[in-house]
Amino acid sequence: MPGKFIVIEGLEGAGKSSAVALVKSCIEAAGHQLVCTREPGGTPMAEAIRDCVKQQWQETVTIEAELLLMYAARVQLLENVIRPALSQNKWVLGDRHDLSSRAYQGGGRQIDDSLIENLRAISLKGFTPDLTLYLDVDPAIGLERARGRGELDRIEQSGLAFFQRTRDKYLQLAAADTSIKVIDAMQPMEQVHQQIKQTLDAFLS
Amino acid sequence: MPGKFIVIEGLEGAGKSSAVALVKSCIEAAGHQLVCTREPGGTPMAEAIRDCVKQQWQETVTIEAELLLMYAARVQLLENVIRPALSQNKWVLGDRHDLSSRAYQGGGRQIDDSLIENLRAISLKGFTPDLTLYLDVDPAIGLERARGRGELDRIEQSGLAFFQRTRDKYLQLAAADTSIKVIDAMQPMEQVHQQIKQTLDAFLS
Repeated sequence: MPGKFIVIEGLEGAGKSSAVALVKSCIEAAGHQLVCTREPGGTPMAEAIRDCVKQQWQETVTIEAELLLMYAARVQLLENVIRPALSQNKWVLGDRHDLSSRAYQGGGRQIDDSLIENLRAISLKGFTPDLTLYLDVDPAIGLERARGRGELDRIEQSGLAFFQRTRDKYLQLAAADTSIKVIDAMQPMEQVHQQIKQTLDAFLS
Repeated sequence: MPGKFIVIEGLEGAGKSSAVALVKSCIEAAGHQLVCTREPGGTPMAEAIRDCVKQQWQETVTIEAELLLMYAARVQLLENVIRPALSQNKWVLGDRHDLSSRAYQGGGRQIDDSLIENLRAISLKGFTPDLTLYLDVDPAIGLERARGRGELDRIEQSGLAFFQRTRDKYLQLAAADTSIKVIDAMQPMEQVHQQIKQTLDAFLS
């Protein structure tokens, strides 16, 4: 693929939105055409799936259905937006991607790694981002920030232990994959942005 | 499970609706409390997923997303409706279930059996119907009947070759599983119903 796929990951309140804005301006400044995506979502059908998975229902939402919906939305975005953009030499910046499912559903929901690996194989066929910036934050701090912004969705209402397991999984997966860079998102904003810029400059050069 | 799960399967225009009505009256006449389901759908969330998978989109619907959505809806129905009913000694009558995905997505869409087996394991955890009545019809005949009823949905608009492959897969799966009974749905209605009643009587006794 001639283009590059960069992903911003992290818990609620880690500062993903401002990181996305910063990375966007850096990539555009480097002269690349850029497509921005978010997951779950990013195509009309994937956004409808997002609504399904995020909203409150008068029934138990099984962890298996949640997982399957995440991957259904991801395939639509990958095949209809991400792959076509990359093959046209555009860069793609993702607000979340596959690592979120591995961390939230694998870590948080404690779904077997082998089940998730099967779904990844079915859905992604080996596709992986070129660079992932994981904004690491203590969930107690992140959730406090997120609550300040307003109402939390169904998944964001999971308890603190869920987010602790999710963070642990993020860190574990980052330690095993050199394309995932951990950014300390508990520093003052200015230092967080400096660390992101340095990481990005190293990748771009 | 104290209750029994009976499923009606078949291509568009095979006569599933009238078979469902017949089986329903037979089971209720035998004194069993009955819950009727349809797939995909049957819970509020599963019906929303049904809308997603059946409607026309201004984007390619990948065969993987279609498959994942079918299983997401199925898990919701299985865990929230079918299993609870069976454990309360009720019988359940399904208008389609897992065999549809194996035939339509496995046969029609030609998705690898091993991928579908993985999804079945994730979603169903070994759950299978007690009896399946597969109404066998030549797709040319079935589609002609279905077209007479009005507009076809996205999946029903697939070509004849798709439905030929789906029928072949239904017959192949039925040949390998004694809980799946093949009903010749190309006979006159009266004989179809007689064959269904005989099959059901043998099962009930």
